[in-house]
Amino acid sequence: MIRLSVFYPSAEGATFDHDYYRAKHVPLCVKTWGLDSAEIDKGIDGPYVAAVHFRFESLETLNAAMSSKGTADVLADVPNYTSITPLLQTSEIVE
Amino acid sequence: MIRLSVFYPSAEGATFDHDYYRAKHVPLCVKTWGLDSAEIDKGIDGPYVAAVHFRFESLETLNAAMSSKGTADVLADVPNYTSITPLLQTSEIVE
Repeated sequence: MIRLSVFYPSAEGATFDHDYYRAKHVPLCVKTWGLDSAEIDKGIDGPYVAAVHFRFESLETLNAAMSSKGTADVLADVPNYTSITPLLQTSEIVE
Repeated sequence: MIRLSVFYPSAEGATFDHDYYRAKHVPLCVKTWGLDSAEIDKGIDGPYVAAVHFRFESLETLNAAMSSKGTADVLADVPNYTSITPLLQTSEIVE
């Protein structure tokens, strides 16, 4: 299994709408990429104000999702909830 | 629910023993802190060479675990698998 994590680094003056993120943006990602669910983090302490973790069956499935038509709409939605440029991490879930 | 994520930023010349991490270090954390399990990531692309995600019932449970006697042994074990200083993130799991 592959985990795609998206992190939003906190910064002076940065904005992040957690409600919109949970109610609109992440559901759009899940629907666009044909996933069952996603895990959403609201930062309490540490470098990130928020994060999301998606699971994909394989790197091929992840790459197919990222290059699918709907991904442009996902990216275009980002300014609707944050001024932060997200940081992406792809990992193999070893356990 | 609270997520404690521990990230290992990749860096020139940094070492990380994924086998030891999975077989010895993370099980030591799980046992020390009385958890059921943990999720281990092996980095493929992005800023981190590895990560682990622990779940705690509450911030109180997390703080109690961190200040428990065994945590010193957990920290003392870090040089056995990596030269990297880990980065900690505490988050509320909102979904």
